Amino acid sequence: MSLTIKLQLNTTTYLNLSPYTKKIHKNPNFIISKPNYHSNSLTPFVFHKKIAPLTQKMSIKSSLIDPDGGSLVDLVVPEAQRAVKASEAESLPKVKLTKIDLEWVHVICEGWANPLKGFMRENEYLQSLHFNSIRMEDGSVVNMSLPIVLAIDDSAKEAIGSSNDVALLGPNQDLVAILRRVEIYKHNKEERIARTWGTIAPGLPYVEEVITPAGNWLIGGDLEVLKPIKYNDGLDHYRLSPQQLRKEFDRRQADAVFAFQLRNPVHNGHALLMNDTRRRLLEMGYKNPILLLHPLGGYTKADDVPLDVRMEQHSKVLEDGVLDPETTIVAIFPSPMHYAGPTEVQWHAKARINAGANFYIVGRDPAGMGHPTEKRDLYDPDHGKKVLSMSPGLEKLNILPFRVAAYDTVEKKMAFFDPSRAKDFLFISGTKMRTFARTGENPPDGFMCPSGWQVLVKYYESLQAEEEVTGKTAVLSS
Amino acid sequence: MSLTIKLQLNTTTYLNLSPYTKKIHKNPNFIISKPNYHSNSLTPFVFHKKIAPLTQKMSIKSSLIDPDGGSLVDLVVPEAQRAVKASEAESLPKVKLTKIDLEWVHVICEGWANPLKGFMRENEYLQSLHFNSIRMEDGSVVNMSLPIVLAIDDSAKEAIGSSNDVALLGPNQDLVAILRRVEIYKHNKEERIARTWGTIAPGLPYVEEVITPAGNWLIGGDLEVLKPIKYNDGLDHYRLSPQQLRKEFDRRQADAVFAFQLRNPVHNGHALLMNDTRRRLLEMGYKNPILLLHPLGGYTKADDVPLDVRMEQHSKVLEDGVLDPETTIVAIFPSPMHYAGPTEVQWHAKARINAGANFYIVGRDPAGMGHPTEKRDLYDPDHGKKVLSMSPGLEKLNILPFRVAAYDTVEKKMAFFDPSRAKDFLFISGTKMRTFARTGENPPDGFMCPSGWQVLVKYYESLQAEEEVTGKTAVLSS
Repeated sequence: MSLTIKLQLNTTTYLNLSPYTKKIHKNPNFIISKPNYHSNSLTPFVFHKKIAPLTQKMSIKSSLIDPDGGSLVDLVVPEAQRAVKASEAESLPKVKLTKIDLEWVHVICEGWANPLKGFMRENEYLQSLHFNSIRMEDGSVVNMSLPIVLAIDDSAKEAIGSSNDVALLGPNQDLVAILRRVEIYKHNKEERIARTWGTIAPGLPYVEEVITPAGNWLIGGDLEVLKPIKYNDGLDHYRLSPQQLRKEFDRRQADAVFAFQLRNPVHNGHALLMNDTRRRLLEMGYKNPILLLHPLGGYTKADDVPLDVRMEQHSKVLEDGVLDPETTIVAIFPSPMHYAGPTEVQWHAKARINAGANFYIVGRDPAGMGHPTEKRDLYDPDHGKKVLSMSPGLEKLNILPFRVAAYDTVEKKMAFFDPSRAKDFLFISGTKMRTFARTGENPPDGFMCPSGWQVLVKYYESLQAEEEVTGKTAVLSS
Repeated sequence: MSLTIKLQLNTTTYLNLSPYTKKIHKNPNFIISKPNYHSNSLTPFVFHKKIAPLTQKMSIKSSLIDPDGGSLVDLVVPEAQRAVKASEAESLPKVKLTKIDLEWVHVICEGWANPLKGFMRENEYLQSLHFNSIRMEDGSVVNMSLPIVLAIDDSAKEAIGSSNDVALLGPNQDLVAILRRVEIYKHNKEERIARTWGTIAPGLPYVEEVITPAGNWLIGGDLEVLKPIKYNDGLDHYRLSPQQLRKEFDRRQADAVFAFQLRNPVHNGHALLMNDTRRRLLEMGYKNPILLLHPLGGYTKADDVPLDVRMEQHSKVLEDGVLDPETTIVAIFPSPMHYAGPTEVQWHAKARINAGANFYIVGRDPAGMGHPTEKRDLYDPDHGKKVLSMSPGLEKLNILPFRVAAYDTVEKKMAFFDPSRAKDFLFISGTKMRTFARTGENPPDGFMCPSGWQVLVKYYESLQAEEEVTGKTAVLSS
């Protein structure tokens, strides 16, 4: 559920290669596929063969972890060729992109979906749908849990005819890209939805917003993007590409990068977890672990807190010193949100491999939401981290499941839940938090830094004011 | 669609290692994941590293292909221990099996689902559901596309309590097996159905028969089966285990085994394909290719032809010499049928690896059926063979997609479809074939061997007589 503050810290029984155990497994390239969930300390990490054990010299390069497929794609046409390509694009059949299609162009062209070079052809689509992964020509496997596809309708298909290449038009009718060597195949929406979400119940946000209104064909091909994607919303400086992030990790001489995916305001439970992770990485012998605080910046559902408000809130959290700016990079992950739970969390983790993170934090019910028609969570809250720990192509990533944090009413702060004194802990749901912010009531001291909280209060006040105006207008016009 | 006679023979662009091309790929253990569907000859097979190229000595052992996981499980308790185990089982909490649960016990205990040692625990279930495969401890991957699970209801769960082991009771209340070190986890039916079938539309036969009435919990564990599973239906001698089949292939000194999965009567289009496959294998240099004609013997939907009728029909096909008994083994595959298309065809192929087949024939829309609520095929008829050619864990199996056969009205026989004279060909649908049999009308000469056809006519006559009796009874009692 969004905004929930139930966090969970667990460990796995993967190769135990912490510097304290000094055990070396016979074949360190394989992990043991028997995750065993309990709540001990964080030390037994999944071993990643690119991490130098302490006995070796520490690596401080962006090669902490290789991008999927070996090297990052960069699908933006070099400046010198843009005029020629744009003129070619003018002459091609046109396909119109929605705002969310454009977000996917952004995602693909910067290499977040590496080694994907464009929208999926059927071969990639089927592997994604059935296996959540794609087999490369050399036999290796990369994770690819979400179909990254472009839908077109019958008339667009007819207009394309037998053309090999098409031009993609942005929502403002500007030429965005060329799609090369296109392949058009059927868009079986029911099957796509069922296999991606594990349900076809009405009310799934991405389905209603994106898939239901889309055409009955998918068009795959290789992308050539005519210029970098910009949003001009005052937040573009936060939109660092995987290449830029890797450079920044190098510049800071990171020897470990741990990514935190979020689409919600940061409260002190999140902060506790991130700071605790850093502490443990230091204990393990890493000298300079860097936190990638990585809010999702693409499509989110209507009742999520908007990106600009979240970015302001995140700034306050760093200004207030809840997170250390010296060891934290805040950047926007440009992907749209599917709310597809265990299937989507793989995408969230995989994209961060491409951005250079070699540790990934995963909590309760990642990318989950309430079932749209039944009174329950859509996904088992533990399935996300279980599935993530077993996902093909993610073996090289260190998965950090975490344990439940809650508000400790005795210590008056967010703390890891202690079952021996369960009655002292208060679980503040997302709904409750939003109610606090809406009604102007303060949450318990220590739940969130005050300046960050004020950002939310201000946002909900403005929303309420807007709703009142809209409400009145509606009454007047009815 | 069941009983359809559209067959398709295609080739893939996998490693081209036929003896005629003599090309050797740098890394013969990997296949190239770019299937390219066209209708050339059969020569460019998927290369299986266990098949000795012609330059090496031919292997004539059952090690033509290794079982998944290395060696076949045999979960039937040795005779000497049965009394002790049966007495232990008496003392354990009991779980009742349905007829179809028992079919799965049969499937698991003989190693068709190798390396599975019992009903899936959650770890295996989730991998099956999300990845259609399971990662082994050594990092290798086996295919496992269908969840093979045992459902229990709340009261059974309560009765089991914290017991480590449970006894399984057959439909006749006889003690069938012990399930060891059990793990009970939630049975989210909606998610299971959506991810397995790609739809949750009402009317899926296995869903309605098995899943909907089942309990809300799944129980996994290791099986110890108290005695071999027998059906006493006069067909048990056809039920050869993977171990027995491998021995028979050895005895016949097979140097290639090609499996044909079916749940329908064999018509001459099927026979053309099987005989043509044999011819091509001989051309490739194999000296003794053996056909495994392998009808599915577990649960099938009500309007499929029953197993005993099919077995009689298959016998006639061999008696009539349409297939050569010298080079054919007819045996029953004990699995229940899911009708889950591209997901299920992987199971059908994987189980035949365990039985020792190293070539697998796949046609149009394998394991498919009509959409239960819409007027269309549930699956894209080409997806089955495409997905099969890309499935994790099936790289070692030689997939033989085949091209469309139909009734050639000029040659008056089943023949591979020739698009240059399309109008000469007649496609006889399953529905049409059933109508022929029901109405006593003969299909065109050369469609099926006459004695095999008579078996079907007799069956449909008996069915009609029975329906008339039932109909009258219904009228009388209403």
